[in-house]
Amino acid sequence: MSKSKPTILVVNDDGITAPGIKALIEAMNDIGRVVVVAPDSPQSGMGHAITIGKPLRFDKVDIYEGIEMYKCSGTPVDCVKLAVNLVFKGKKPDLCVSGINHGLNNSINVLYSGTMSAAVEGAIEGIPSIGYSLDDYTLQADFKPCIKYVKQIAQQVLKHGLPTATLLNVNFPVASPLKGIKICRQANAKWAEEFDERMDPHKRPYYWLTGVFQLNDQGEDTDVWALENGYVSVVPVQFDMTAHHAIPVLNSWKF
Amino acid sequence: MSKSKPTILVVNDDGITAPGIKALIEAMNDIGRVVVVAPDSPQSGMGHAITIGKPLRFDKVDIYEGIEMYKCSGTPVDCVKLAVNLVFKGKKPDLCVSGINHGLNNSINVLYSGTMSAAVEGAIEGIPSIGYSLDDYTLQADFKPCIKYVKQIAQQVLKHGLPTATLLNVNFPVASPLKGIKICRQANAKWAEEFDERMDPHKRPYYWLTGVFQLNDQGEDTDVWALENGYVSVVPVQFDMTAHHAIPVLNSWKF
Repeated sequence: MSKSKPTILVVNDDGITAPGIKALIEAMNDIGRVVVVAPDSPQSGMGHAITIGKPLRFDKVDIYEGIEMYKCSGTPVDCVKLAVNLVFKGKKPDLCVSGINHGLNNSINVLYSGTMSAAVEGAIEGIPSIGYSLDDYTLQADFKPCIKYVKQIAQQVLKHGLPTATLLNVNFPVASPLKGIKICRQANAKWAEEFDERMDPHKRPYYWLTGVFQLNDQGEDTDVWALENGYVSVVPVQFDMTAHHAIPVLNSWKF
Repeated sequence: MSKSKPTILVVNDDGITAPGIKALIEAMNDIGRVVVVAPDSPQSGMGHAITIGKPLRFDKVDIYEGIEMYKCSGTPVDCVKLAVNLVFKGKKPDLCVSGINHGLNNSINVLYSGTMSAAVEGAIEGIPSIGYSLDDYTLQADFKPCIKYVKQIAQQVLKHGLPTATLLNVNFPVASPLKGIKICRQANAKWAEEFDERMDPHKRPYYWLTGVFQLNDQGEDTDVWALENGYVSVVPVQFDMTAHHAIPVLNSWKF
């Protein structure tokens, strides 16, 4: 590209000190001018939450040399809103990337994920947006094999743009070598929860959420299938949640 | 119906003591056996957040005579998960209703709303689910004009079921009389945010999120149009966020 470098907003939900955002910052720094706005603490599972009932802290920090960075006390979606309004002041960045998340955000996880909700918020703001996640929850996660694809997908989005009101949900398996990219749909699945009941020292019960991922989809065009077979899954996501096919059904009811 | 009374899970995001959930409990108590699981504090704007990093409290409470009620320290989605696992123990209720929310959850608000996310979680669990909201944020909100429709819609859902993997988002305007029900799509809109910057006593800035609802949709088939014209809006909602129409576009890209 002969024009000036694109401006890239980097966000995440694991917090500003997570290894995953460091890997994403480094990858994006090769492509454009990076601005980071990320939570000051882990915000996994925050979905599309925003902070209404209390005020937010928002402060410039100096973590990685030469990178403009801000930490925020709120949720991943708050970070995008703060970035658009306090940093970019209405002049939108060319791209919004979120992650790289420690842990998959495939299938139904798109709803619970702070990483993906930040990307959804970017898309609502009209910014081409991508969420990236790797199937490794640990702080020792190795993001190196992902980086080639992370850059390639970002560059394609910068080149082509995205269809109106859509964004990308990109997930990486831990596989060597990665077999390439598959464009997929969100697999039909849910979490079968259990709650681990314990007693506190005052003999009052408390509960930890645990769960088992339950796949109800044998399709070979899903993100779950792609990941299980060593591919990078790319799902186009929309934030119009209308079930358009159900409108005629409801219109046939008697009210 | 000659068969036994349906079991109805009632949840919300404004908290177990909100007037809106009281109105919904009373309405559902005329239709079936009510079980309430609701947050012990307001959870507006929590979206599809779940509680991962800390344990949950979950306790039986006795607030309204003859109604089985539990309060939970988590989010609205946590409430549904706890209800399914600790109260119903896998035997699903016949209906899950959320609200009545103090404030509209039309258009893009479906994403930010704890009320709607609880209903989405009910639908993910395979329970026919409905979220109800009224265009009045105050504690003095008058839910009476809604009740006829709240019951009617619940009864229709109990009678017909809902198309697979969908739920209903029902919003009420403050209008007298209400003109009836319109089946709608989610209007294309966003929040244009501003952050109100203030100084704390230690001279450090903090920010309050404020915003203006920005409608980018002139359609007369939207929930915004219906509400502005005195109708009760009913939007069928799905939790498959795949932008299916974008899959061929992405497949034409060179990776």
